[in-house]
Amino acid sequence: MTNDRKCRWGILGSAGIAQKNWQAMAHAENAELVAVASRDQAKAREFIERCAAQVPLAQAPDAVGGYDELLARDDVDAIYLPLPTGLRTEWALKVAQAGKHLLCEKPCGTSLEEVERMVEACERAGVQFMDGVMFMHSDRLAKVREVMEDERTIGDLRRIATQFSFWAPEDFLTQNIRMHSDLEPHGCLGDLGWYAIRFILWAMKYQEPKAVTGRLLNASGRSDSPHPVPTEFSGELLFDGVSASFYCSFLTEHQQFAHLSGSKGNLRIDDFVLPYFGNRLGFVSSNARFDCEVCDFRMERREAHHQVDEYASSHSTAQETKLFRTFSGLVLKGETDPHWPQITLLTQRLMMACMESAQKQGKEITID
Amino acid sequence: MTNDRKCRWGILGSAGIAQKNWQAMAHAENAELVAVASRDQAKAREFIERCAAQVPLAQAPDAVGGYDELLARDDVDAIYLPLPTGLRTEWALKVAQAGKHLLCEKPCGTSLEEVERMVEACERAGVQFMDGVMFMHSDRLAKVREVMEDERTIGDLRRIATQFSFWAPEDFLTQNIRMHSDLEPHGCLGDLGWYAIRFILWAMKYQEPKAVTGRLLNASGRSDSPHPVPTEFSGELLFDGVSASFYCSFLTEHQQFAHLSGSKGNLRIDDFVLPYFGNRLGFVSSNARFDCEVCDFRMERREAHHQVDEYASSHSTAQETKLFRTFSGLVLKGETDPHWPQITLLTQRLMMACMESAQKQGKEITID
Repeated sequence: MTNDRKCRWGILGSAGIAQKNWQAMAHAENAELVAVASRDQAKAREFIERCAAQVPLAQAPDAVGGYDELLARDDVDAIYLPLPTGLRTEWALKVAQAGKHLLCEKPCGTSLEEVERMVEACERAGVQFMDGVMFMHSDRLAKVREVMEDERTIGDLRRIATQFSFWAPEDFLTQNIRMHSDLEPHGCLGDLGWYAIRFILWAMKYQEPKAVTGRLLNASGRSDSPHPVPTEFSGELLFDGVSASFYCSFLTEHQQFAHLSGSKGNLRIDDFVLPYFGNRLGFVSSNARFDCEVCDFRMERREAHHQVDEYASSHSTAQETKLFRTFSGLVLKGETDPHWPQITLLTQRLMMACMESAQKQGKEITID
Repeated sequence: MTNDRKCRWGILGSAGIAQKNWQAMAHAENAELVAVASRDQAKAREFIERCAAQVPLAQAPDAVGGYDELLARDDVDAIYLPLPTGLRTEWALKVAQAGKHLLCEKPCGTSLEEVERMVEACERAGVQFMDGVMFMHSDRLAKVREVMEDERTIGDLRRIATQFSFWAPEDFLTQNIRMHSDLEPHGCLGDLGWYAIRFILWAMKYQEPKAVTGRLLNASGRSDSPHPVPTEFSGELLFDGVSASFYCSFLTEHQQFAHLSGSKGNLRIDDFVLPYFGNRLGFVSSNARFDCEVCDFRMERREAHHQVDEYASSHSTAQETKLFRTFSGLVLKGETDPHWPQITLLTQRLMMACMESAQKQGKEITID
């Protein structure tokens, strides 16, 4: 395998979210988009034309009619799977059976068992499994870890507080697939809470919490949904010596903060999921100092701003480019990294435990 | 009563926290500190000398030996009561019986019944009752309310997230009165959570939540404490259509954020309790915009910074000065404002409900 070989990608489904990844693959020098499949070939063609008009590729990918046709191709190494969660398991298993590597959107499954089956199928086939959490690939995380471990900024971590939300307009709440319980049964918990749980796990180096709690604050569904789905959800992950809260919502406008607080100070990321456009990615640490001198009480703000040389969406240095670069690199090396499926399984397990807690009115669910 | 009359203050107890209020009274043009009482007159004298050396008063207050002696004085209109919570009720009742107005440190009582007795005693005596939450008197709150109600920044409020904590050194954990369950049975919940609950209630215009939850994350006590006290606590207040989380801790270094998130955007205060020194008091609002154009996904940061012409601790415009100015103004007008005891009672009630929830492993406690 020479250095100029590229990982050849196929997109299974022509969802809007996949358009972002067209550009990410174009930016990743070791990736090449070979084919886009839709059940209807005309839709795949439209998707390709729309994307190529904005971001032309050296060679236009093929428009494939039907998912099985995509999986039968010899010139595809890896599949990006953006289908709705409820339809994903069937196709994830076929991807593995076809011997293709699998980049799977999140939440990966509607149950832990589904994800276990996907991951086992990938293991048996010797292909890489990875979920689509893009911030995992940002250089910012390494910088955050460096500050977390410098022993003077945060000290011993005690508390993590996260929030990720967006305000869904009426047509989302009545028509979007994320409001249908067969397709996305975990609603905002799957769509947004997944990122919060993952970030918390990352901060905790994938230690398992002792227990979790979850509270369903709101739920609704579009008219053809068999059940309501969570539209507003809060929870807490309880580790030894550290607790972590999260809130996610389709009813609350854009918010994506993460605070890490410890015995010596704290660190805040304002945009931990989707970095703000046009900025080098950054975060703020703070070690305020409280001075008392008889009648004078002074709380001094002592902030430090940290940045990495990485830019947001659509940029060649963006985290989604790095995701495709990392994944493609594994494929080209012919190695699989078991870390990625492991953290997907843990995230799914905790998300399910949060749902279980919510069904029991916030009762603490022990994690064994 | 002429304009140059001042409200004449006595401090009952010579706790360190009262030193800050020496300066606040010196700054409030309608307040005058007349006497400081300690059980031991020498201690009162030392307190006065220490404060006067830094902030001299036109006329030095008297050093009074014994609390009863202070309450017997005819030249005192109002009492500031910084005694530990567990000792406070007895003296609060005596303050009212002596016909003096009462500014009471928080948490006001060890139980709701205690605070009800204090408030009733003040009502019968026709004197003002108010608790010592200084941020209630900051001009910043009015500005926050203005932004909350402008209909474009936050929209409909959905979520409040607050945290207030400081890292207590070893000698605090082993010697401070806040680690003794007879003196301060609610530990960090009383000392820090009180502010979070009050801020949330303020944001909600004192609407009662439907239910609250509380979780005791850590507890300990100094060696002579009959019981452990909370040292780390989290909770959630559940209103109709709005939920509010809080976290407070003696084990986590300084943090005092409040996020208000709604259907259109959000607002963040970094220092909602103790404003950062040397800054005009401020906060940040944000209405990020997510733009998708085929392959380009842009999350645009759109922040606005708001400030009021008010400075932090030790300044003549500081919130603690305004507390003494407001209270003194009520006394001089000869009116009592029932709003202040009402919000103390509601805060105490919810704090006790959070404790009850924590004792029941986080079970939701309904508020009738």
